[in-house]
Amino acid sequence: MSENPTYTIKVNKAETSKIGSVNFDDLPFGSIFTDHMLYSDYKDGAWGDPVIEPYAPMPMDPSSRVFHYGQAIFEGMKAYRDENDEIWLFRPDQNFDRFNKSATRLAMPEVPEEIFMEGLKHLINIDKEWVKKGKGNSLYLRPFMIATGHGVIAAPSAQYRFMIILSPARSYYQGEVKVLIAEHYSRAANGGIGAAKAAGNYSAQFYPTRLANEKGFQQVIWTDDATHTKLEEAGTMNVFFKINDTLYTAPAGERILDGVTRKSILELAERENIKVEVRSVLVEELINAAKDGSLKEIFGAGTAAVINPIVGFSYQDTYYELPKQDNPISLQIKDKLTNIQHKLAEDTFGWTVKI
Amino acid sequence: MSENPTYTIKVNKAETSKIGSVNFDDLPFGSIFTDHMLYSDYKDGAWGDPVIEPYAPMPMDPSSRVFHYGQAIFEGMKAYRDENDEIWLFRPDQNFDRFNKSATRLAMPEVPEEIFMEGLKHLINIDKEWVKKGKGNSLYLRPFMIATGHGVIAAPSAQYRFMIILSPARSYYQGEVKVLIAEHYSRAANGGIGAAKAAGNYSAQFYPTRLANEKGFQQVIWTDDATHTKLEEAGTMNVFFKINDTLYTAPAGERILDGVTRKSILELAERENIKVEVRSVLVEELINAAKDGSLKEIFGAGTAAVINPIVGFSYQDTYYELPKQDNPISLQIKDKLTNIQHKLAEDTFGWTVKI
Ligand SMILES: Cc1ncc(COP(=O)(O)O)c(C=O)c1O
Ligand SMILES: Cc1ncc(COP(=O)(O)O)c(C=O)c1O
Repeated sequence: MSENPTYTIKVNKAETSKIGSVNFDDLPFGSIFTDHMLYSDYKDGAWGDPVIEPYAPMPMDPSSRVFHYGQAIFEGMKAYRDENDEIWLFRPDQNFDRFNKSATRLAMPEVPEEIFMEGLKHLINIDKEWVKKGKGNSLYLRPFMIATGHGVIAAPSAQYRFMIILSPARSYYQGEVKVLIAEHYSRAANGGIGAAKAAGNYSAQFYPTRLANEKGFQQVIWTDDATHTKLEEAGTMNVFFKINDTLYTAPAGERILDGVTRKSILELAERENIKVEVRSVLVEELINAAKDGSLKEIFGAGTAAVINPIVGFSYQDTYYELPKQDNPISLQIKDKLTNIQHKLAEDTFGWTVKI
Repeated sequence: MSENPTYTIKVNKAETSKIGSVNFDDLPFGSIFTDHMLYSDYKDGAWGDPVIEPYAPMPMDPSSRVFHYGQAIFEGMKAYRDENDEIWLFRPDQNFDRFNKSATRLAMPEVPEEIFMEGLKHLINIDKEWVKKGKGNSLYLRPFMIATGHGVIAAPSAQYRFMIILSPARSYYQGEVKVLIAEHYSRAANGGIGAAKAAGNYSAQFYPTRLANEKGFQQVIWTDDATHTKLEEAGTMNVFFKINDTLYTAPAGERILDGVTRKSILELAERENIKVEVRSVLVEELINAAKDGSLKEIFGAGTAAVINPIVGFSYQDTYYELPKQDNPISLQIKDKLTNIQHKLAEDTFGWTVKI
């Protein structure tokens, strides 16, 4: 709890827990939620006291702005239980900062740090039985904000609801991931909302991703909308390329989400003396590197999957298979990162925060 | 009703009407709704029978996809009551077609024509007292669709709700509209969802529009995100420029909504022998035309305001005031269009559809 709390969290506990009915060995991602949720309502220019209640549907007016004008943002984070039964967050300050940046870009009010952080910790504490020990296990945390003001008026809402819901997760092996490089569709634009974790960005990706799926590719590597020559993100992850012994990833900017996993990989690489260059990689470069054998690895990076190795990519109807690596850098990095997250390795960065 | 209906509309009427409490002389746009709403739920690959019920909040799971990934689309249409007490729609086929195009782009299922059209007519009929006579009066119709599937999985939902809500409207005078030409922000991208009436597009506009408001401009004229040299749309309307005696408007394409008002103006202009060119107007051209006096008018076009004359624009901190016109083309067109909509002039186009 903060020293001088401004808000009082009201708690209304569930009478029974659903936890007994959950099979923790078989958890489809993002589908099962814990017993409680948190919300705080914004109106008349101020946030109300957060409320923790049993997870349940909530009444929404059909004219709620979120349904019509898409004012909705979210974050994705995880909590881990270590071998001493302590529960840890990973760089929650980064998610909090990014949440409020997303809010600003969507003309939504910022959420006070106390509501976000103390709310998150309090909620996790109440549902702490849902955070399971063991590498790969985690509790996925989903803070989000939606415009709840009524009226089909294309202008920012005056009312909002901030919420947190929690979903137990296991590390998942997605099978071999092949990607299609976007030649026509795009995820983000200059002067757009690509750098915000805004709901609208995801809805734009589904159709092109479905077209890729139908061709046998699991994800799309997005390119810049203006020229389709720069490689930007992979699905809903940041993307890294290993060419010779250097890792490349695009700079986080207006079109690219400033991923916490990406950022952590960059810092980790520096510590481990792995060569990294932050710059846009061109499609042409990638093709040439694939042809001359200097392209060693491609992987996606994001909170849900941590690291997602990619086995090959297609561009202009040609498929390029990546060479198999004995000890891929992607898995080395994944191991180091997840060890820090699960408190199995020393956190020399100060990234982990105890609840 | 269609000849062989596939769906049966279930009707559950409100016990009392709110209509007595509504001041029809003072209607804030999009804020008051009629007594009933319509919905139809999509699951297991099929649409359910539409239900007409009293307008009321509905329970939504906090993990509903629309809150997290923005799968939400809508339409905006109007119904008019003529002097013989008949009620008319304006080109509803256009809105229906566009709705399903938006659905496809957002990886949402298409809505059957019967549900959309018969549902709309049935609902309006039930709430027909809300459609008032007199030019400028209308009932604003808001069909929309939201992703109702549960789970924070960044993939298309398997469940959806199609809805229609109705809001009585009056023509409104917005005061003098000055616009700011976008130099940095953008509304849409190549390969993006700008051509869809998708909720996410609007949330992206709010912040740049608020910045413009703070500088004293009511709206933004969006430019292409890649070069910011092409004039695209004005706020949430298509935009027309009159230079000398020719009207210019950008082609509807991937970045520009294919507006029904825009389309109707183009057809009307042809009938009236008004010179029109459909092509992108460059910012530079506009500035030059403003300087040499050949720029006569700028106006926005959309269902809500019909025509929205613009009195001046700002670019790179210079404000360009438009000359006052004695008999502006914008108001001539508005008059012709609204006369057709209200059945005060012959509809030589076959645009109006009786309920
Ligand atoms: C579009 C997009 N890019 C990248 C990422 C990765 O960000 P993070 O590492 O903070 O999860 C995410 C979220 O997972 C995302 O949604
Ligand atoms: C972005 C945008 N452009 C243009 C329009 C105008 O389209 P219509 O004339 O079909 O209302 C609208 C909707 O009103 C819109 O939302």
